[in-house]
Amino acid sequence: MSFLPIKRRGLLFILSSPSGAGKTTITRALLEQDKHLSISVSVTTRQPRPGEVDGKDYFFVSKEKFDQMVENNELLEHAKVFGNHYGTPLMPVEKALANSQDIIFDIDWQGTQQLKQKLVNDLVTVFILPPSQDELERRLRSRQQDDEAIITERMKKASDEISHYSEYDYIIVNHDLNRSILTAQSILEAERSKRRRITDLPNFVRTLMGDA
Amino acid sequence: MSFLPIKRRGLLFILSSPSGAGKTTITRALLEQDKHLSISVSVTTRQPRPGEVDGKDYFFVSKEKFDQMVENNELLEHAKVFGNHYGTPLMPVEKALANSQDIIFDIDWQGTQQLKQKLVNDLVTVFILPPSQDELERRLRSRQQDDEAIITERMKKASDEISHYSEYDYIIVNHDLNRSILTAQSILEAERSKRRRITDLPNFVRTLMGDA
Repeated sequence: MSFLPIKRRGLLFILSSPSGAGKTTITRALLEQDKHLSISVSVTTRQPRPGEVDGKDYFFVSKEKFDQMVENNELLEHAKVFGNHYGTPLMPVEKALANSQDIIFDIDWQGTQQLKQKLVNDLVTVFILPPSQDELERRLRSRQQDDEAIITERMKKASDEISHYSEYDYIIVNHDLNRSILTAQSILEAERSKRRRITDLPNFVRTLMGDA
Repeated sequence: MSFLPIKRRGLLFILSSPSGAGKTTITRALLEQDKHLSISVSVTTRQPRPGEVDGKDYFFVSKEKFDQMVENNELLEHAKVFGNHYGTPLMPVEKALANSQDIIFDIDWQGTQQLKQKLVNDLVTVFILPPSQDELERRLRSRQQDDEAIITERMKKASDEISHYSEYDYIIVNHDLNRSILTAQSILEAERSKRRRITDLPNFVRTLMGDA
């Protein structure tokens, strides 16, 4: 996809959804098809898994370094998951925004809230909903062979995430994956054309009107 | 294009631009490709031209009837052009909005301002800019053989319209017509997915979470 011939500020494209609603697949499709979009690389204190590349999958840092980043306000958002710390470094995001590059975030409602506190005007928030409760359960089950207790726990977590849908700007009900990808692309394309993101529009208009 | 499986409120899609920037062509393309979109039929006090059909091209009414509609608040916006009155009837618009149908308006900044006063939450406003002053002049010239005074007058009018670009939500710089049509379609599709337009979302989410 293409762009206005004039300079714009990048945006942060947030996709949230309960697990099993299609968020990761949609994120991957957008990244493949859109060269102006990249994914944020997180910092983490956990050990690299086999095959993971530092600076590509994650920035692997010590607990001391991580705490220092939090203290210096170098993280946009951070969370602790199963004893490990994860966070989004601010600097690459600021750089991307200034260079008309967009960043996609595949994060939950809590991460979204943290981002809102720092860069609310650059945020475009999309919540993906499953088409029905049965379909959500089917998708959560089809992932692997789990016992009923785990499925129930996952459904509970999904319900908790869904309860935050009203904090998002856009809603995609993922009935049909290809259609949902098209809608996500449309949202991205539309938001790029928002007047307030086009940073040198006053200059451009002055030229058009012959006052330049 | 398609829709969320849940009910939404329609929207009013406003395209404005200086004459010669491509607004009418883009409007026509959107109408051809989108079955959920229709164009508002205006009422007018002017005489029908040969071939014009009452109720399709315009609703042709007497000056008395028109004044009555204004008085009864039955018009969303109205204007006088070359001695004739034109207006947008409210009722078909209200009906469309309630039925998830979208209406496109090819109007100037003054009409847009009037619509904003009545249905601001249902409005999506797009301003189309020519790619350069030279290109605008070229397009205004290529229309027909006019003398310099008329061209100059038209350029002045275009500048006046352009000066209102900052009252619009979205900007399309019409460098390439096909690309501009795609952007307009993306804006329409994205706005249809705005959470606040999806009227029965709370019910749908309640069903998803198993509380229904």
